[in-house]
Amino acid sequence: MSNTHKGTRRLETQSYKGVRDFYPEDQAIQEYIFGIWRTVAESFGYVAYSGSILEPAELYRAKTGDEIVNEQTYTFTDRGGREVTLRPEMTPTVARMVAARKRELPFPLRWFSIPNLFRYENPQRGRLREHWQLNVDLFGAKTIDAEVEVIALAVEILRKFGLTDEKFSIRINSRTVMNAILIDWLRLSEENSRAVSKLIDRKEKMPRSEFDEKLSALLGEHNQVLLTLLNSKNLEEFSSHLPTNDALTSGMSEIKDLLAKLEGLGITNAIFDQTLMRGFDYYTGIVFEIFDTNPNNRRSLFGGGRYDELLNIFGSEPVPAVGFGMGDVTMRDVLETYNLLPAYTPPTDLYICHTSQNVLPFIHDLAATLRGQNIRVAIDLSERKVGDQIKTADKHKIPCVVCVGEEEVSGKKFTVKCLADRSETTVSESEIHTVIKKVRHEKDRL
Amino acid sequence: MSNTHKGTRRLETQSYKGVRDFYPEDQAIQEYIFGIWRTVAESFGYVAYSGSILEPAELYRAKTGDEIVNEQTYTFTDRGGREVTLRPEMTPTVARMVAARKRELPFPLRWFSIPNLFRYENPQRGRLREHWQLNVDLFGAKTIDAEVEVIALAVEILRKFGLTDEKFSIRINSRTVMNAILIDWLRLSEENSRAVSKLIDRKEKMPRSEFDEKLSALLGEHNQVLLTLLNSKNLEEFSSHLPTNDALTSGMSEIKDLLAKLEGLGITNAIFDQTLMRGFDYYTGIVFEIFDTNPNNRRSLFGGGRYDELLNIFGSEPVPAVGFGMGDVTMRDVLETYNLLPAYTPPTDLYICHTSQNVLPFIHDLAATLRGQNIRVAIDLSERKVGDQIKTADKHKIPCVVCVGEEEVSGKKFTVKCLADRSETTVSESEIHTVIKKVRHEKDRL
Repeated sequence: MSNTHKGTRRLETQSYKGVRDFYPEDQAIQEYIFGIWRTVAESFGYVAYSGSILEPAELYRAKTGDEIVNEQTYTFTDRGGREVTLRPEMTPTVARMVAARKRELPFPLRWFSIPNLFRYENPQRGRLREHWQLNVDLFGAKTIDAEVEVIALAVEILRKFGLTDEKFSIRINSRTVMNAILIDWLRLSEENSRAVSKLIDRKEKMPRSEFDEKLSALLGEHNQVLLTLLNSKNLEEFSSHLPTNDALTSGMSEIKDLLAKLEGLGITNAIFDQTLMRGFDYYTGIVFEIFDTNPNNRRSLFGGGRYDELLNIFGSEPVPAVGFGMGDVTMRDVLETYNLLPAYTPPTDLYICHTSQNVLPFIHDLAATLRGQNIRVAIDLSERKVGDQIKTADKHKIPCVVCVGEEEVSGKKFTVKCLADRSETTVSESEIHTVIKKVRHEKDRL
Repeated sequence: MSNTHKGTRRLETQSYKGVRDFYPEDQAIQEYIFGIWRTVAESFGYVAYSGSILEPAELYRAKTGDEIVNEQTYTFTDRGGREVTLRPEMTPTVARMVAARKRELPFPLRWFSIPNLFRYENPQRGRLREHWQLNVDLFGAKTIDAEVEVIALAVEILRKFGLTDEKFSIRINSRTVMNAILIDWLRLSEENSRAVSKLIDRKEKMPRSEFDEKLSALLGEHNQVLLTLLNSKNLEEFSSHLPTNDALTSGMSEIKDLLAKLEGLGITNAIFDQTLMRGFDYYTGIVFEIFDTNPNNRRSLFGGGRYDELLNIFGSEPVPAVGFGMGDVTMRDVLETYNLLPAYTPPTDLYICHTSQNVLPFIHDLAATLRGQNIRVAIDLSERKVGDQIKTADKHKIPCVVCVGEEEVSGKKFTVKCLADRSETTVSESEIHTVIKKVRHEKDRL
């Protein structure tokens, strides 16, 4: 088609608002992060699954929380009249998938996925309209060992990235305990209890006086009881203000058990935090988050909890479930802050340049041979001078170059240049791959 | 939250129409396919990039072709009044990204991506509403060597999957030649020329008489000239019916050059096919497709071409570009047909069972040690009998099992069971990883 085609109005080159383009150097960072997520999840016996970003809108109405569905999702009606949502989180999808094959699947299931998720909100630091998230879920395990395992897995990820334990802290709370306090003891309605939870969740985002006033409006006479609990300095002080009742006793002992077991595994930076709520409605037991301890950058690095009743929405019997999510945007931000991201290098090992167009057929053959020897090879196809061809390799950060002309082809000797230290090694064709593998090996050790 | 929560109407467990859930065994196949795509693309020096699935709708209006934008895309208006499209193809996105950084990027660029793409159509065999596609693009290379390279890359992918060359054929045509015939020689308007191209594209989908009638309506007196060309048996016969003109001569010699160069690289299953059109409006030169040669299953496995002028829509100077796409649905279908998909095995190497709850802390430590030795370990956390625990490992197809009780802990000897052949090896704790790596190595060799 000619370039006088209709629609010659110049188009913008920007991406859609709040989403990202991943140029090779950005993509390499994504893949580094995803690679560590995957390696650690697999090392704990988790296997990968995935689903479509398109889900029936009703999937989120039941349990995600009204604010999220009504104000924060991309939901539209398709041409067949179906309401479709771009998934804002992965848990409803994985619950749907498990419920669909509950009879055939061999429980317990250890599943992970790295989906992209969509939120319709104003882009800001750490919050975009599209982000990726590691989701790790363990289905079919009732005991607190399940929580121990997924928290240990998350901690192992942070350590693998090079974050030392003092850079993050794990906060633990229990929906069982909070419900026993708000509903069983203080006799709040389920609706009021949820409103109190959401208020506590936003505690740090408002002045102290505003919080007290709102809490008082919701709780009336019980205001002071709850404030005393919220202001308790630690687990012991908190416990001392509680009445004796079965749900509270078992909920509190579960928290203590979890903290003790984590400590037994060498995870000593976990603490009880009665103000930790987590936004989603579907949690039923322990909830947890890992926070960055940097005072300039207090953010949640990941969060999760137990959701034993989510499968009920599909008419399935309950399946015990514990899981967490960890986002790419925050993860990358933290790794940048601590200078823990590796320098970019492309996967390409070798760039072959030519001093004559006549040798291109020879070069295509040489490249094919080297590829068979597990060397990743790009060929310069231009008609530029060899010096400019080498500059291209350098700009792409490709570590090795071989220049081929008629002399090399007839003499059967080839010089491999290493661009990092400008060293040169002259070898026969069959030895080229050995030289390059040595350079690759040295690069990997750095 | 209690299970008497509002919204207790039972939800469906089906996915949204026309999209797929990937359970671990399906996901493993996706990852096998993506893995070969990636390995081969990287072996040719290509680097990964990616972009969001959300794009401004106007990106597709200019060049994708009206039918696709108007009838076949998911397009909706966001809450900010922006028209957004779920990308139906990746080429406009990559062109946008390259145009946005044209000054800084070091050309030539060898880029690949494995995006998911969306088409609003009725699901049928081989055509879903969401599919994944390998996209390979080479920007900044003017000569036919660029086409040679990307076609060689695609052929190498098919060979790597185990498809022998007689199972597919590469068809090649040229937009330069077709435009020189339809516009310069037969004097069709650009609109009529496009209508003729689309008609030829659908030739096999209608009875011969219908095709002749429609062609005659569009071409009038030139009908017979074009039919003679379309019915030519080969490149020589086709050429003999052409007038002498510069565009035709250079276009035809480019096709011959491409075929000769592919043959020089050992690719002998490429042929000229004057009926090959390709749907997108943006192609400017060589177009190509690879077809399955199975007579029961004639499908396009991949297609691509040169699109030197697509960056013009962003007000950029032209950038020479060649690329192709290859879909996961067709690929998987073909590999299933020829029984070329590997059997499922999970990444997990070892399942640790227990004969007493007391040893769980010991097992957590043992697992951590083994993970440090690069073994992927799942732990049974249940309170079931050890025989049932072993059955769980078997159902998950995990190759090795170690059962730990108080005797093993005090005796410091552990028995590794290999579930494939029921063999057992008893070793000290520090030797467990060696036994498992041996089993893994044997599994990989199969």
